[in-house]
Amino acid sequence: MKRVKLVVAYEGTNYCGWQIQPNGITIEEVLNRTLSELLGEVIQVTGASRTDAGVHSLGNVAVFDTDTRIPPEKICYALNQRLPEDIVVQNSCQVPEDFHPRRCYSEKTYEYRILNRKIPVPTLRRDTYFYYRDLNLENMQKAAAFLQGEHDFRSFCSVKTSAENTVRNLLSCTVEKSRDSILTIRVTGTGFLYNMVRIIAGTLIAVGVGELAPESIPEILQKKDRNAAGPTAPAHGLTMIGINYGGGN
Amino acid sequence: MKRVKLVVAYEGTNYCGWQIQPNGITIEEVLNRTLSELLGEVIQVTGASRTDAGVHSLGNVAVFDTDTRIPPEKICYALNQRLPEDIVVQNSCQVPEDFHPRRCYSEKTYEYRILNRKIPVPTLRRDTYFYYRDLNLENMQKAAAFLQGEHDFRSFCSVKTSAENTVRNLLSCTVEKSRDSILTIRVTGTGFLYNMVRIIAGTLIAVGVGELAPESIPEILQKKDRNAAGPTAPAHGLTMIGINYGGGN
Repeated sequence: MKRVKLVVAYEGTNYCGWQIQPNGITIEEVLNRTLSELLGEVIQVTGASRTDAGVHSLGNVAVFDTDTRIPPEKICYALNQRLPEDIVVQNSCQVPEDFHPRRCYSEKTYEYRILNRKIPVPTLRRDTYFYYRDLNLENMQKAAAFLQGEHDFRSFCSVKTSAENTVRNLLSCTVEKSRDSILTIRVTGTGFLYNMVRIIAGTLIAVGVGELAPESIPEILQKKDRNAAGPTAPAHGLTMIGINYGGGN
Repeated sequence: MKRVKLVVAYEGTNYCGWQIQPNGITIEEVLNRTLSELLGEVIQVTGASRTDAGVHSLGNVAVFDTDTRIPPEKICYALNQRLPEDIVVQNSCQVPEDFHPRRCYSEKTYEYRILNRKIPVPTLRRDTYFYYRDLNLENMQKAAAFLQGEHDFRSFCSVKTSAENTVRNLLSCTVEKSRDSILTIRVTGTGFLYNMVRIIAGTLIAVGVGELAPESIPEILQKKDRNAAGPTAPAHGLTMIGINYGGGN
């Protein structure tokens, strides 16, 4: 028996998120089914980031256990032959049997992309959030800086969470603008609460449009109240960029 | 009666190109139908770039004549309410009655985007051409420089063309690589032959992969033979970026 790690990219548009659920098709379900067919065993993957419906990924991580004799690093090629075109495994490798994608220390990076112009661009509609009111980049950057570090992020967590400890360490939170009118909020952290990145994005947008002052962020954190932060930005602007486990995994 | 100019963006994935044809739905057809419904007149647009099936646009141009009392610059908003989400008019304005989008002097810019890495990226599959063999950027740039200027581009034109004069002026032809493994071929010219940009892209890819030398470009031009150039690169990597008519149109 060996444990295999997959780095999984997907366009989330046509899926009800990562995690198996009764109402629609999910990434996890497609991976389980395709791996089971390929390897002739019942395979059950464990994912690192259980992304919401509509969220995309360039580098989510999943592991599974198998008895296959296919070399672990070749599994991705065989798998991609069978996967739909909106899910592509970027690589596969063997990891120690005690490697767990959520319990091991990791640094996860997400990007939230906002198309900030007057008229939408059709080719960008699936993976950027179109927002037509002018956003003040400098104020968003100031606000983002206040979010960096270890804080109780209860205000940035959907109320339906089961998390008891809502302290998280946001290693970095930056906002950049590219020449094609795309504002990219990039966050890296060792762990995230439910909807945390989308609430950060919604709050930074509220700052950008002048509804919140950049200096209000410490106060919002302190309130530990979801209603103090901005709205949850739409899922389709969010992309899971990748996960760094250090130590070569 | 007045003439109105539209700047039209679209994702070409679900269309059989610009020009009306019997076998499938086209951008021109959707614009005609939607404008006719909106304005209560029979409207027939004339397009600048009759893009192929699968080709995208950020700024193609179309004109039509109308008796409407809706101010020309407001038409785009009313139109976007009714258009499908993969066609978005960027702006609308009145132009002189003798303005013709193909006959007036213009500088058209296209980009051909190549995703040059080992494994595809699902979110980029519709508007980049995935090519896994390593491409030598420097050689592609050298080859691109040879294409700039006024030449007989018969070798870079599909044989099914009706064009008699195949001399065109390529104002610029550049190749750049971004950090996300995307090679962008950008061309600006006063006119293009049928499939010319896609044949330029296919030829530059052949140079990048070492099948053609950069220095062979002058010879390929001189041969005036379609078979001398590289293959026609797939349509979905191509985007019509915009058209500059000068003089405020």
